[in-house]
Amino acid sequence: MNKVYLVGAGPGDPELITLKGRRLLELADSVLYDHLANPALLDLAPARAERIYVGKKKSVHAFSQEEICAMMIDRARRGLNVVRLKGGDPFIFGRGGEELEALADAGVAFEVVPGVTSPLGIAAYSGVPLTHRAHNKVLTFVTGHDVHGIDWSKIGQSETLVVFMGIFSIREIASEIMRNGRSGETPAVAVRWGTRP
Amino acid sequence: MNKVYLVGAGPGDPELITLKGRRLLELADSVLYDHLANPALLDLAPARAERIYVGKKKSVHAFSQEEICAMMIDRARRGLNVVRLKGGDPFIFGRGGEELEALADAGVAFEVVPGVTSPLGIAAYSGVPLTHRAHNKVLTFVTGHDVHGIDWSKIGQSETLVVFMGIFSIREIASEIMRNGRSGETPAVAVRWGTRP
Repeated sequence: MNKVYLVGAGPGDPELITLKGRRLLELADSVLYDHLANPALLDLAPARAERIYVGKKKSVHAFSQEEICAMMIDRARRGLNVVRLKGGDPFIFGRGGEELEALADAGVAFEVVPGVTSPLGIAAYSGVPLTHRAHNKVLTFVTGHDVHGIDWSKIGQSETLVVFMGIFSIREIASEIMRNGRSGETPAVAVRWGTRP
Repeated sequence: MNKVYLVGAGPGDPELITLKGRRLLELADSVLYDHLANPALLDLAPARAERIYVGKKKSVHAFSQEEICAMMIDRARRGLNVVRLKGGDPFIFGRGGEELEALADAGVAFEVVPGVTSPLGIAAYSGVPLTHRAHNKVLTFVTGHDVHGIDWSKIGQSETLVVFMGIFSIREIASEIMRNGRSGETPAVAVRWGTRP
């Protein structure tokens, strides 16, 4: 039985995958990829490898989380090299932890390859640092996927705040942040598909 | 006049640099590298390229920040391709912002290539996610370099807290975190040189 590799695809620009991520893609028999992983990366896999789009676009899930896990487990048991290609980093708001739990429960070996999480890519390509010794020493990442599941009173004071997947609830998120002590004059930037053309 | 490329070297394992980072190293005439960037990456630069260790080890700075900036500017003006190789990501507690300001002030063109910041590498290689839908939706990064410059009361409540460069002040940092509302039973892990053998 072979391993399942959870590989971070990086923030968008296909040149921002790691050397290790590319090496594993080149050895893959089966690639299961996300909405957020750049499809150009699929060209790195051998021509004979199967490529399965597993969705994860907001409210259009091609497969459920359970189905994705079942497909990975099935292929690893059949002796295939499986690459699960995930946008950004697998462990930053990417459900990587849930997928690993399913693999561990099934007794399937796995390895995780980190990736450049999207705000780091956006900061680099826009020339705006996320931290700066003269300005901030604290940086908070929060998911914008579940606005009501978050206690905004606790994070409203963080020096620099990055909201992932915040586009769909941008109005509510901005209201929560202001209601919890930030001025409406606080500089902010909204980015979608950062590091892509 | 050529560009200065600020390149994130990743968390330690040399295979965790990006494809873009490697491409730029292969084209470099001059590489200025940090204590935290894996020296194995220097082999990617052409044999003729100069390699300058610019330090940044705690309290042993081979060169001051001003000297580092002056060296980059001088080389770019002489038409050299300069790679400034920085451990992790250039914009996460790496003084990348300060270096860009110096380049911009000098009228030197630059480009920033993001990298896998160290906690992402450590999480991936240890199989411990930094976020998990069932457990946390907020992740805070803070520098442990300047314990007294931080208002720990504001971050003591964050669900998951990552302290960068915290080894040298680990006792003080732990006290501050507990003094600001966390139980001494809170699970914690201390990692140094993560993702290296």
